[in-house]
Amino acid sequence: MVVAVKRQMGETERKIRVAVVGASGYTGVELLRLLINHPAVEITALTSESYAGALIGEVFPSLFGLLTLTCNKFDAREVARRADLIFLAVPHNTAMTAAAELLPLDRKIIDLSADFRFRDPAVYRQWYGVDHAAPELLKEAVYALPELYRQQLTAARLAAAPGCYPTAVLLGLLPLIKREIIDPDSLVIDAISGASGAGRKPDLPLHFAELHGNCKAYKVAGHRHTPEIEQELSRCIGREILVTFTPHLVGTVRGILATMTATLVTSKDAAQLRALYQEWYQNEPFVRILPEGRLPETKQVRGSNYCDIGLAVDARTRRVIIVSAIDNLVKGASGQAIQAMNIIMGLDERTGLQLPPLFP
Amino acid sequence: MVVAVKRQMGETERKIRVAVVGASGYTGVELLRLLINHPAVEITALTSESYAGALIGEVFPSLFGLLTLTCNKFDAREVARRADLIFLAVPHNTAMTAAAELLPLDRKIIDLSADFRFRDPAVYRQWYGVDHAAPELLKEAVYALPELYRQQLTAARLAAAPGCYPTAVLLGLLPLIKREIIDPDSLVIDAISGASGAGRKPDLPLHFAELHGNCKAYKVAGHRHTPEIEQELSRCIGREILVTFTPHLVGTVRGILATMTATLVTSKDAAQLRALYQEWYQNEPFVRILPEGRLPETKQVRGSNYCDIGLAVDARTRRVIIVSAIDNLVKGASGQAIQAMNIIMGLDERTGLQLPPLFP
Amino acid sequence: MVVAVKRQMGETERKIRVAVVGASGYTGVELLRLLINHPAVEITALTSESYAGALIGEVFPSLFGLLTLTCNKFDAREVARRADLIFLAVPHNTAMTAAAELLPLDRKIIDLSADFRFRDPAVYRQWYGVDHAAPELLKEAVYALPELYRQQLTAARLAAAPGCYPTAVLLGLLPLIKREIIDPDSLVIDAISGASGAGRKPDLPLHFAELHGNCKAYKVAGHRHTPEIEQELSRCIGREILVTFTPHLVGTVRGILATMTATLVTSKDAAQLRALYQEWYQNEPFVRILPEGRLPETKQVRGSNYCDIGLAVDARTRRVIIVSAIDNLVKGASGQAIQAMNIIMGLDERTGLQLPPLFP
Amino acid sequence: MVVAVKRQMGETERKIRVAVVGASGYTGVELLRLLINHPAVEITALTSESYAGALIGEVFPSLFGLLTLTCNKFDAREVARRADLIFLAVPHNTAMTAAAELLPLDRKIIDLSADFRFRDPAVYRQWYGVDHAAPELLKEAVYALPELYRQQLTAARLAAAPGCYPTAVLLGLLPLIKREIIDPDSLVIDAISGASGAGRKPDLPLHFAELHGNCKAYKVAGHRHTPEIEQELSRCIGREILVTFTPHLVGTVRGILATMTATLVTSKDAAQLRALYQEWYQNEPFVRILPEGRLPETKQVRGSNYCDIGLAVDARTRRVIIVSAIDNLVKGASGQAIQAMNIIMGLDERTGLQLPPLFP
Repeated sequence: MVVAVKRQMGETERKIRVAVVGASGYTGVELLRLLINHPAVEITALTSESYAGALIGEVFPSLFGLLTLTCNKFDAREVARRADLIFLAVPHNTAMTAAAELLPLDRKIIDLSADFRFRDPAVYRQWYGVDHAAPELLKEAVYALPELYRQQLTAARLAAAPGCYPTAVLLGLLPLIKREIIDPDSLVIDAISGASGAGRKPDLPLHFAELHGNCKAYKVAGHRHTPEIEQELSRCIGREILVTFTPHLVGTVRGILATMTATLVTSKDAAQLRALYQEWYQNEPFVRILPEGRLPETKQVRGSNYCDIGLAVDARTRRVIIVSAIDNLVKGASGQAIQAMNIIMGLDERTGLQLPPLFP
Repeated sequence: MVVAVKRQMGETERKIRVAVVGASGYTGVELLRLLINHPAVEITALTSESYAGALIGEVFPSLFGLLTLTCNKFDAREVARRADLIFLAVPHNTAMTAAAELLPLDRKIIDLSADFRFRDPAVYRQWYGVDHAAPELLKEAVYALPELYRQQLTAARLAAAPGCYPTAVLLGLLPLIKREIIDPDSLVIDAISGASGAGRKPDLPLHFAELHGNCKAYKVAGHRHTPEIEQELSRCIGREILVTFTPHLVGTVRGILATMTATLVTSKDAAQLRALYQEWYQNEPFVRILPEGRLPETKQVRGSNYCDIGLAVDARTRRVIIVSAIDNLVKGASGQAIQAMNIIMGLDERTGLQLPPLFP
Repeated sequence: MVVAVKRQMGETERKIRVAVVGASGYTGVELLRLLINHPAVEITALTSESYAGALIGEVFPSLFGLLTLTCNKFDAREVARRADLIFLAVPHNTAMTAAAELLPLDRKIIDLSADFRFRDPAVYRQWYGVDHAAPELLKEAVYALPELYRQQLTAARLAAAPGCYPTAVLLGLLPLIKREIIDPDSLVIDAISGASGAGRKPDLPLHFAELHGNCKAYKVAGHRHTPEIEQELSRCIGREILVTFTPHLVGTVRGILATMTATLVTSKDAAQLRALYQEWYQNEPFVRILPEGRLPETKQVRGSNYCDIGLAVDARTRRVIIVSAIDNLVKGASGQAIQAMNIIMGLDERTGLQLPPLFP
Repeated sequence: MVVAVKRQMGETERKIRVAVVGASGYTGVELLRLLINHPAVEITALTSESYAGALIGEVFPSLFGLLTLTCNKFDAREVARRADLIFLAVPHNTAMTAAAELLPLDRKIIDLSADFRFRDPAVYRQWYGVDHAAPELLKEAVYALPELYRQQLTAARLAAAPGCYPTAVLLGLLPLIKREIIDPDSLVIDAISGASGAGRKPDLPLHFAELHGNCKAYKVAGHRHTPEIEQELSRCIGREILVTFTPHLVGTVRGILATMTATLVTSKDAAQLRALYQEWYQNEPFVRILPEGRLPETKQVRGSNYCDIGLAVDARTRRVIIVSAIDNLVKGASGQAIQAMNIIMGLDERTGLQLPPLFP
């Protein structure tokens, strides 16, 4: 079923025709970077409201000569005509409308926004400030964290790629939460992100001279990824968990580092916990449990779909500290979305995603 | 029209003769940057083991033409002969030996290393791995956080400038701890630092190509500033407090951002807590409590002696999140050491330190 | 013991009342950073069109607590009422109108824009695309490079602070051009700048994720500082000189490094040329000629008013390569403007400007 | 003959067994990043003197889990036993000895050092300060710039990958030099590099806190890539050309931007010159000539094997300014070495190298 490389594919093996809606943002260009070399995919349509009429190589000079498609304004029928599967890389609120138009046209959709991540439209309303435009779709949308919902993704027609922070946090916490090794009420989550997570729209806090050399916390006690983390942790354990989540922004571009601190309710030491993680993730192609003495660094996963996880135990305070690192644009967005696509389309999950990190 | 530049001071007003032992490191050059314009000080001696014989303008081209002293190897008698007050900007372990030699020569000493920060030599031994060489001096050494020990500093002859992380953390926590507004056992401290805190010695993790664009946690559950934080918090409250402290390193040069999360044991809201901080620090010249809606950023204090503090309450989890920012080389080291010098020498505490931050 | 802090100045010594028109940009905040500690100055008025009504500490959190003035919209009469001397830190085109309103009110003006740098309004029109609004003022405006026009500045009421690139380039070339040591027609000028030179207005090329880690040339064969360099070089030598000037932008904030390459028309070697520079600039307080084996680095002048100059001779090609470095916001803008103010007001030229560079 | 993807290769299609000598440096890890996914290659041996005995995933955590080879000390026989083709990613001087040992063992060699780039051993001695250890091999070594020596590479057994600066400079100049459109004696070359070009060995100028935010020129009038540029330009034109080449270092990791300025000896305008470049490089898979109004940026080629070229004409001075950008570790080193390998081994030249740049 699977195709291993574009150029050798027989004419008879039809490629998946893929559209990227919202191609002019950072998750858009990252989808294109990865899809260009995906052996089972043909990129057939791009949309952008702000760059309509422009060649993608003008929008992103990095792609000049590598992809010669023009961006068009979004038109659901036209997109559906040209593609079998559609990535929505547009802002929340816009995505749910587009999805509602595309799904009836019988197309697979992978949404990178927040619009289909919540089961409960009331949570969406509370944190995003608007009523959900297509609440009936929330039931069937699959939260596209393959390490949690691989089985459900197999049959999905609407997948919601998780947020960047929740991806790093959930992968770092799943074994501890599911095995009830920590007290969930003690959980404190701090995370550091680079600027690309905030998108491509110029804005003073993202202005180079303001951010270079800067570190700050932001949206403290109010970041929208909080309810996403809580929803999934709560589902793991079967009761409501509330967490304190404090995101930070530093003067770098890619990468999320999440540091999670919680009180242990067992007497396991670091070696035992590491062994648990290794076993838990042994068949996961994109999770790497680091050996003793090593902790994740964002630069060691940059440009790749890997999530690196390390941990330490503070015996004095009986706490465990788990650290996880991802590239927010790959495993935290576009790479994970393609991983979901691979699963949905019955491909080897790793197809097109086995790029080693770019270091240094 | 009049200029108040230092060269116009009357010849009869004798300046404090100051030596910097360990002038070729980053806290050394920062002391010099600040002392050069200090109106009551004359820099009279510099030592450096690795740059002995070199002009300071060769060691630090930034100072070329601004200070024309040569670095010599450390000689206690010679240093004491040339200076009234001596800054020790050498590594721990070296500092305590130098101090033990200098104190009997009747000189004031301000040590920027960890050697005189601990009351209990056993704690020093436990965390620094060596026996203390001058345990009898620990009793008289004053922990040079003016906001806590201003009175004691007045009469000190040996001052121990606090570590960079403890400075940010303690200033951020004092009002809450002293007023017993949080549960100390719930305290989780995460902090982010730039590379200058790790010193000037070339090392692979500090190699430009390795660190640029990188974020990582380090020395998790084992950083040597942990016992320093614990000692001072415990003294505030009169019982032993243990904290989980996780430092992070990011690809920037200056600045520490500390994020402290703790469970509230009162029902105060953010406005009330902010009012408490404003009152607590109202007479402190170098602590700025940020108004509602604003949180500290390292770049807003860069190059200055200010500590900015902001806070938020997570009503859902009943936790308070306090964020503090300092320039690790100024309020976290050399600026604070000069602040201590001003107090010890009976000067206005602010003298030479009222530089606005360098932004952008 | 004595402190020479400004608050202790006698009440009877009247300070210069200074306004900053356009206080919310980067040259604005840099003026404020330097003026706050200027012993002969009192900042009395700030204007900003976009931040009218805001406290300056809200516009620039770095100044929070250090200066408590509110920004107002520009009103010439009101500004003239409150200030003796006015810095115009607004964009070109705006500045000339403001100057034309303020000068009749008998105030001294230092303009940081390009509006009064050209003698010939036709050149202004050609490169800036608009007719000059006050061409009659061009005659009396003094190009405020103290190293060239100190004498003229003494009597100026309208000073035009040079562009950042021209400052670095002219200081690097003056001795060679005036002494006719190089062939002016062979001159090739490349320069590298950080992002702060492009101002504070958010724009895609200055968006953090776009610029971080990037290097590029821009405005090749068309940068507006070209005619400014040419005007001054031509005046030095008494005939028209045209230069090729290629600016580059890299992912840093402060600093300009100019590299100038020209064919030697004498047989002088590097040592002789260095001696010439040392002699040429021996009385200049803000030009540092680096010794053999050392070349300028932007970080060694950061935050300071110094211009560092070094050179090498390529004996194989008979060319000299001169390298100069400044902080574009200080010697390339606000510091140099204050230096001009000091001269105009009869103060010691160095007043308020002797801050050592911030390193690292 | 060629294989397009690993997993589909028949068992009978034998892969090229490849060794990387000097795997623990930056060109080493970059070779591995690219070779891991090269469909016709199997990495069979790694050597490192400083990390002998270590798994490559310990040396480079980015490769953890992706390649499980151990580094050994270099042993020519052992390397030759395990590999058909050997990349030498060791420093100059070391490489020529290794090559002299390996070649008699009938192995193909691609050397990334400077040791086999010069035709004349006297030039090597002059610029590198040592006698060449294997001067007899210089005759047969092919300078591995495929755009110049593709034909010769086909039959090479010893290829010398060009330096990073010469690659950017030569690709930028070839059409102009070969068509005699510029005066070669007027040529001034300035270039900007990131820190990765200086290697992985910790050193004060590459220490993070020293380089971050810094710009400087270095090795002015004496950089070792100068004679390499001169050799190849001279061969193009059949007479000796000397150039002034000034490299700069800025605080970034990857990327070289070369700016070349020369006097035109024809009356061609920018459009005509651009058309010439487009025609010249029309069949080159890794050279992209940018359209009017666009100039190269290092970030637009980062992580890729592309060389982007743009140009402008300064009609006022009759000069052309050509700007080229490469990733110094890819087209400037490891990518180009693999491109040479592909040619030598009869593979499609693009195999394994068609990665789009990593942006942002």
